[in-house]
Amino acid sequence: MRIKELSRLSGVPVATIKYYLREGLLPPGRPTAATQAQYDEQHVRRLKLVRALIGVRGLSVSAARNVVNAVAAEQTDVHTLLGLVSGMWPLGADPGGDTLCENAPGDSETDALLAELGWSVSLHNPARQVLDHTLLTLRSLGMDYDWRFLLPYARLVHGIAALDLDQLRSPRDPLEKAEQAVLLTFLLEPALLALRRLAQEAESHQRYGVPEAARPESDPA
Amino acid sequence: MRIKELSRLSGVPVATIKYYLREGLLPPGRPTAATQAQYDEQHVRRLKLVRALIGVRGLSVSAARNVVNAVAAEQTDVHTLLGLVSGMWPLGADPGGDTLCENAPGDSETDALLAELGWSVSLHNPARQVLDHTLLTLRSLGMDYDWRFLLPYARLVHGIAALDLDQLRSPRDPLEKAEQAVLLTFLLEPALLALRRLAQEAESHQRYGVPEAARPESDPA
Repeated sequence: MRIKELSRLSGVPVATIKYYLREGLLPPGRPTAATQAQYDEQHVRRLKLVRALIGVRGLSVSAARNVVNAVAAEQTDVHTLLGLVSGMWPLGADPGGDTLCENAPGDSETDALLAELGWSVSLHNPARQVLDHTLLTLRSLGMDYDWRFLLPYARLVHGIAALDLDQLRSPRDPLEKAEQAVLLTFLLEPALLALRRLAQEAESHQRYGVPEAARPESDPA
Repeated sequence: MRIKELSRLSGVPVATIKYYLREGLLPPGRPTAATQAQYDEQHVRRLKLVRALIGVRGLSVSAARNVVNAVAAEQTDVHTLLGLVSGMWPLGADPGGDTLCENAPGDSETDALLAELGWSVSLHNPARQVLDHTLLTLRSLGMDYDWRFLLPYARLVHGIAALDLDQLRSPRDPLEKAEQAVLLTFLLEPALLALRRLAQEAESHQRYGVPEAARPESDPA
């Protein structure tokens, strides 16, 4: 298909597609003339991935390029791909930004947690620092928590990660599988936090709540 | 104590404390002279809360003021407080930003999900829109998911919310309890996402992985 048709199918303006081509976010089409090229279904799907990473999850162009390159290069190995995606860390917080954790690898609270859980995780996974940082922050606020506090959370989250990987069983095409791994990891993050807030309200309602209609405005207790 | 001592105990510079006082993030001290006031332990704890909200979770001054006012006003009612905190929504994503979801309340996919779960959640909880938005985004990317896809995730996240509320059993002081509710909700968000990425790597290693040492550099499969 021509670039105009690619634009129509993906919902991405032609000028933006040209920009993504220049930035290497999209592989070049098959040239058919000096200024024309043919694109295919792979381009449509890649464009949707790029839009999701940049538009929905707010990644920079260079971070999105790292992710799509990882997807394209490691398409047959979900395990390696997930490791690469983890290393990108598009969350607001930059875990390496301020180095609150000065423990050598193997010596941190997160190491103790992972050992207790029996999880096999690379030393380079930046999520390690996020955990160390969180525990230090909680303690600096006077909350006396160590890594054991995270154990029951980690066991439940392990169930979530198993669901994530279950979702990757169905795609036949390895590229599609890799794209899904990226999308599920990134796009479900706000949804999981939203579910937690809804569940907090529901659980709190069950434990402490009274029906809203029965509660007088002037008596918050 | 004087403002200097408050600064020493909290680790917050005097100029910043004065700014927080002007902005209403901190209640005024007890005046002892025209330009002097006495502060107490409540001020120390409040300052730590403000630092956590602004410094660690990146809230704006006005968003942090909303949270601390809610903590101060609703200190005896954890249920109401959690509802208020939910309404603040300090996540990067602004769920109301682009109105992808035009369903009337009671009619959305999230309503169907909550009904199936039997969760009692206010119509005003902004986390509802985040879920609707996520499902629409996944579908726009060609992934054929509806709310049923979120059911097993929601059941696991319910366990996480129950752990959250368990943490609030210990504080005796109602103000301390309210502060903990806020801190646990906000500060654990990056930690839970980090745990998910670690668990994905661990689970993926178990299902598909080979020991790193045994895998040749040149063969990603």
